[in-house]
Amino acid sequence: MTSMNDLLEFHYIQQLKYRYLRALDTHQWDLLSTCFAKAAKVWYAGGAFSHDGRDNVVKFLRELMPDSFISSHIVMHPEIKLTSETTAEGIWRFQDIVHFLEPNPVFALWDIRGGEEMTGAGYYYDNYVKEPDGWKFSSMGYERIFEVIEPRAGRLGLHVTVDPQFGMDRRK
Amino acid sequence: MTSMNDLLEFHYIQQLKYRYLRALDTHQWDLLSTCFAKAAKVWYAGGAFSHDGRDNVVKFLRELMPDSFISSHIVMHPEIKLTSETTAEGIWRFQDIVHFLEPNPVFALWDIRGGEEMTGAGYYYDNYVKEPDGWKFSSMGYERIFEVIEPRAGRLGLHVTVDPQFGMDRRK
Amino acid sequence: MTSMNDLLEFHYIQQLKYRYLRALDTHQWDLLSTCFAKAAKVWYAGGAFSHDGRDNVVKFLRELMPDSFISSHIVMHPEIKLTSETTAEGIWRFQDIVHFLEPNPVFALWDIRGGEEMTGAGYYYDNYVKEPDGWKFSSMGYERIFEVIEPRAGRLGLHVTVDPQFGMDRRK
Repeated sequence: MTSMNDLLEFHYIQQLKYRYLRALDTHQWDLLSTCFAKAAKVWYAGGAFSHDGRDNVVKFLRELMPDSFISSHIVMHPEIKLTSETTAEGIWRFQDIVHFLEPNPVFALWDIRGGEEMTGAGYYYDNYVKEPDGWKFSSMGYERIFEVIEPRAGRLGLHVTVDPQFGMDRRK
Repeated sequence: MTSMNDLLEFHYIQQLKYRYLRALDTHQWDLLSTCFAKAAKVWYAGGAFSHDGRDNVVKFLRELMPDSFISSHIVMHPEIKLTSETTAEGIWRFQDIVHFLEPNPVFALWDIRGGEEMTGAGYYYDNYVKEPDGWKFSSMGYERIFEVIEPRAGRLGLHVTVDPQFGMDRRK
Repeated sequence: MTSMNDLLEFHYIQQLKYRYLRALDTHQWDLLSTCFAKAAKVWYAGGAFSHDGRDNVVKFLRELMPDSFISSHIVMHPEIKLTSETTAEGIWRFQDIVHFLEPNPVFALWDIRGGEEMTGAGYYYDNYVKEPDGWKFSSMGYERIFEVIEPRAGRLGLHVTVDPQFGMDRRK
């Protein structure tokens, strides 16, 4: 049974996920850091990229995602379960689109030379912990359903326009 | 007017939809079966695929979606209305991506030979019924805004990587 | 701190956003008009398309989106904040797909001749006002992360099928 109070906790946990993804796609690394517990672990891409500790996670993401890594990660379908007063777990669907504007050595597997588009879909498997200042990720990982990589550079008539601010509100 | 209690019911109905889509894209047919009332009806693709009764619906989906049917169905924008204490209706936006790895006879219209990608968008029109063990679909259908099918096999440099577990958590 | 009552207001504001997007993609201009306060302002595409007043906004969208403009706009990740009893602001992620079936003079920048697909991602920055009959947009704008335009007419084997009713429920 879900209570009204559970709905509030789900709300806070969802806000955490949204803030994390906004920090990720807008390259706001300080904001992103606040989303993780100090001892957080991540296992992205089914464990291909695993890191322990908030600082290592943020360092990895900064190196993976330079200015030439243009991304849109979207999540939906949250299935969240409170496992104690201060812990929870959640499954989310995601889809992602990445435009590689330049070579990317972190994606060594794929020989990214710039001009590639990557699209994919899968599931996030998260664990959350409630700290004095709110919910944080204690772990986060994902498994893909599929991943597609395709070189597009030089394709006739293709225009890829990128916002140098990654969509942040420029009125401010 | 929406009450706090309505928010709880909306939450349960949304969880049903998310569970259905997770069962669908991960090919968990037993889990999928639990999402439907026994007399449920579906009318997919504007009625092109219509089936009566939970067992017939699940049988149809199993045949449509063999291991070589790799899909990502996502939904958003739920507009749900309670129509009685035990019934409700809902409109959802959806988008879907399908990678056909092999010929698919169910999509007879399109002569699917393997290597095609299908993408689309539209609206689900659902009806729900509250049974003793929770909300179920009494009917589900969708109309498309558009549908795109394109053969991609042999396209230069294209890599489509598929998870044999369709994104399920392999740590378990 | 978020209260139970705040969750209700967030729900109403989300319903407004979903109704707006359904009206937009199904070309229901009268329904779309009811989503805006009379003095509403919009600044789409980082301000490239700015309009003042509900009637001007609707007039612009009608001209931008004739029957040959087939679109799927999806939003997620709502981060909504109540700023008074009758005002609120919100950030949403969005992705959009547009199929241009014919030349479109409003997109003068891109020389749209028909057959192009546009895809993009970004953030909506909304302001809301609570009127006697519910929440309305007092302003709405977006910044893109990226935008891709590609001519596809004549591509081998490509089928784009469009519903003349843009996905509306034809059973009614």
